[in-house]
Amino acid sequence: MALPPDRATVRAMTDNKDDPNAFGIWDGEVAVELPKEFDASLYYIGRIRTPWKQRKDCPKNARESEAVCTVELEPRWAPALKDIETCTHLVLLYWMDRSRRDIVLQMPRHYGVQRGTFALRSPARPNPIAMSVVRLVKADSNKLEVVGLDCLDGTPLLDIKPYFASTDAVAEAVVGWHKARKG
Amino acid sequence: MALPPDRATVRAMTDNKDDPNAFGIWDGEVAVELPKEFDASLYYIGRIRTPWKQRKDCPKNARESEAVCTVELEPRWAPALKDIETCTHLVLLYWMDRSRRDIVLQMPRHYGVQRGTFALRSPARPNPIAMSVVRLVKADSNKLEVVGLDCLDGTPLLDIKPYFASTDAVAEAVVGWHKARKG
Repeated sequence: MALPPDRATVRAMTDNKDDPNAFGIWDGEVAVELPKEFDASLYYIGRIRTPWKQRKDCPKNARESEAVCTVELEPRWAPALKDIETCTHLVLLYWMDRSRRDIVLQMPRHYGVQRGTFALRSPARPNPIAMSVVRLVKADSNKLEVVGLDCLDGTPLLDIKPYFASTDAVAEAVVGWHKARKG
Repeated sequence: MALPPDRATVRAMTDNKDDPNAFGIWDGEVAVELPKEFDASLYYIGRIRTPWKQRKDCPKNARESEAVCTVELEPRWAPALKDIETCTHLVLLYWMDRSRRDIVLQMPRHYGVQRGTFALRSPARPNPIAMSVVRLVKADSNKLEVVGLDCLDGTPLLDIKPYFASTDAVAEAVVGWHKARKG
């Protein structure tokens, strides 16, 4: 869904509001000028190893694949995995480092309707942090084997959290635009 | 749970491994030296308004409070809220800007047992990104009213995502160390 990053394109595009297609923004997509400065900074704490080397090979969503993926943590952070083996499920946060950050209205190709960025799980967003709920298969010193990812091989890892059903599981939640599309 | 940030303390502490209590690390807590450089950067896209001005006033977890909190988005990003009113629940990512980032083993006061940082939801973690699932009460231009937060007033917002029960809700998930503590 994400277009390749291209700062020059972003700037040119926002300077040419009359021709939003001129620099590769798709029909129906709208970009804004990014803030001049960043506000905070991140460490990559490891990498995610998956079978998918190109975006076209990735499953469309994580439920499509039972592939076991590997989370490789930098040795510095390995002690922080203590007790994680007692968790059946985890929340992983990772960084979609090739995503555009300036698009506020998107036209996902498989839906064909313009949607707001915050109503989508597209990697293109102001802070391209992806969130996935995964099943923990195995924990081993600085590596975790998990099921439930759909990202590219080598994706930078930002955080690992225990998944608490009491606060994180909302079975009755509805994404109206998505439901309407299917119904 | 998080100690106040203090870069000098962090450095001093990691230079004094023989006396982990000397600079305010609690018994049973372990810090590591932080990486020399950051790898990526974030924009604050807005602020979260809550009734809680000090950490001691915050609910211990989000299920303890039915308080309606307000997400105030910077006007730049407001168009990205399109369609969000069709979502019953959202994932919010926000930045715990006052947290230490170097602690790998923690001693949460209300548990009294040493745990790995990645087995905890404590704000003290290498990338202090908090994740909360909230119920959307009202969406209005650049403001959202939501229920399910427990953070300080003024907390910087990083991302808003639609919550998909199909991939995000795992009712049977178990955090073993937490269950054992209660059982």
